[in-house]
Amino acid sequence: VEISGKYLLFLGTAETKSEAKTASGIVEWRPELCLAQWSLPGCKVDLGLPTMDPAAAYAAGARTLVIGVAPIGGILQPAWLPALIQALEAGLDLAAGMHTRLKSVPEIRDAAARLGRQLFDVREADRTFGVANGDKRTGKRLLTVGTDCAIGKKYTALCIHRELVSRGVKADFRATGQTGILIAGRGVPIDATISDFVAGAAEWLSPSNDADHWDVIEGQGSLFHPAYAGVSLGLLHGSQPDALVLCHDPSRNHIEGYPNYPIPSLERCMAVNLGLARLTNPNAHFVGVSLNTDGWAEDERRALIQKVEKQVDMPVFDPIATGVASLVDTLVGVKAAVA
Amino acid sequence: VEISGKYLLFLGTAETKSEAKTASGIVEWRPELCLAQWSLPGCKVDLGLPTMDPAAAYAAGARTLVIGVAPIGGILQPAWLPALIQALEAGLDLAAGMHTRLKSVPEIRDAAARLGRQLFDVREADRTFGVANGDKRTGKRLLTVGTDCAIGKKYTALCIHRELVSRGVKADFRATGQTGILIAGRGVPIDATISDFVAGAAEWLSPSNDADHWDVIEGQGSLFHPAYAGVSLGLLHGSQPDALVLCHDPSRNHIEGYPNYPIPSLERCMAVNLGLARLTNPNAHFVGVSLNTDGWAEDERRALIQKVEKQVDMPVFDPIATGVASLVDTLVGVKAAVA
Repeated sequence: VEISGKYLLFLGTAETKSEAKTASGIVEWRPELCLAQWSLPGCKVDLGLPTMDPAAAYAAGARTLVIGVAPIGGILQPAWLPALIQALEAGLDLAAGMHTRLKSVPEIRDAAARLGRQLFDVREADRTFGVANGDKRTGKRLLTVGTDCAIGKKYTALCIHRELVSRGVKADFRATGQTGILIAGRGVPIDATISDFVAGAAEWLSPSNDADHWDVIEGQGSLFHPAYAGVSLGLLHGSQPDALVLCHDPSRNHIEGYPNYPIPSLERCMAVNLGLARLTNPNAHFVGVSLNTDGWAEDERRALIQKVEKQVDMPVFDPIATGVASLVDTLVGVKAAVA
Repeated sequence: VEISGKYLLFLGTAETKSEAKTASGIVEWRPELCLAQWSLPGCKVDLGLPTMDPAAAYAAGARTLVIGVAPIGGILQPAWLPALIQALEAGLDLAAGMHTRLKSVPEIRDAAARLGRQLFDVREADRTFGVANGDKRTGKRLLTVGTDCAIGKKYTALCIHRELVSRGVKADFRATGQTGILIAGRGVPIDATISDFVAGAAEWLSPSNDADHWDVIEGQGSLFHPAYAGVSLGLLHGSQPDALVLCHDPSRNHIEGYPNYPIPSLERCMAVNLGLARLTNPNAHFVGVSLNTDGWAEDERRALIQKVEKQVDMPVFDPIATGVASLVDTLVGVKAAVA
């Protein structure tokens, strides 16, 4: 998947910022890609971008309309169809990460074919991958892993990547999920890959690189998730991470949606990840813990971070509340030590 | 995947029994399904079945021609095309487990559409699966796991299933790979499933059943395989096995095709499988070890089995050389104890 910039962000009839989470994530992380926003009557969200219709956006340099709104169920709304066709006619490609595939909607598929436009369904791998070869690659890799899904693995990876770049360290963010791919403009939708090729796709995603280059890889799922652990393991093996960061939400007691599956302790989650990671990289180790303390009072957060830091003896942070500087200090040290 | 019997086994121009491994596996395990064999000039393999052309086989009750020969590379040979079209015209469906999909060959696809025949590409899941729910199901499950791929997991599962049935125990063999599906007539090609749904597909494959019923599930890959461990883990979690059997080839030193990846010790392989299996079934445990001692002298085999039995303190057997009676003795005990 490799999407043409710049983006016109489509907000549909979103009433809340959380409905437009995909669009606001792209604005937060790739503002230079976001040329304008466009919505339908009834939309109550404003991302602070100029509002343009497709023709104006194309004239100003936009090349892709990104559907940045996720209605409940992830279904493409029939009311959007005229707007999407209008975008294709104005010269824009379409990109979306919804359950409904753009290619599966006859009106959109036919208009795109007629006009020579591209449709990017970022939930769908657009190429086949080989079987993993397990060979060591040059360069350094960091993978975020979690005690559960939807716990901050993408956000943590993006923050670490930004901090590395700001310090002049060569680094790439490697996207493995829908929103991450729309933010990065490319990546592999690892959970939509044929199971035999997950580790191979992960190898492809972070190829050999300079010895002092870091790939910061967005993790998926959790080894303690009864449905997705296999995806997490294939990504872990193919990524061959030198450094692992554990993402955790201290207020969650069980795997989201699975009340019979408790969240593992940090120690156990690290031990299981490490034991398995060392199959393909015997030097893998944890370098930090990322906590999601959204909504915690400042003094409680500070106390928690200190407590966990004592518990695990490595940098502990909340990427939003405290930033990732302490982690990246360690990481740059790791780089020197491992290189 | 659910294939219509009976089968006409197509051998192409196979010169060795190993080229016709798929066909001979079906004859060995499902002789009642195998009506006849058919081959092209130059074929040197005889499976001991009557030879019939498609018209004669159809008249005698065959409903599917199964491509039972796997040339190197798994590619459908152009020289077979007239024969395959002839089979479709005679009234037969086609089934194959090759890399080349039957549906991808225009002549075959068009003839099947014109004649109303079905094409079974058993490497391809023919339905979508849901995300695993992790809920406990009724009935008992056994899964074969391995220190590597291609080490006897399917054969061991088939032998255990046959022994259970011969003792009057309710049991089903659950196929997860191409040859297994052609033998069972149905199953899920787990390695061709989208990664997010592997555990869900495994749950679907062995649904709730009578408390004293055993599903004997064909394992895939190995947790120590750098390319396929994620597939193995999804299958392990979705299968929720009560009983695990470890399959091992004592003459193999490293993962086949991966000289830098040593075969793990039996103890380590069991510990890692068990640690992960217990996420979805806290009662999982190993009940035996299946050794592939093909080519070993009888006294050496006996000494090895005794040695390993002391080492792991559970039944150790070679399904071909010694049979699986000792394992099934334990298993029936397990059933009573767990039920």
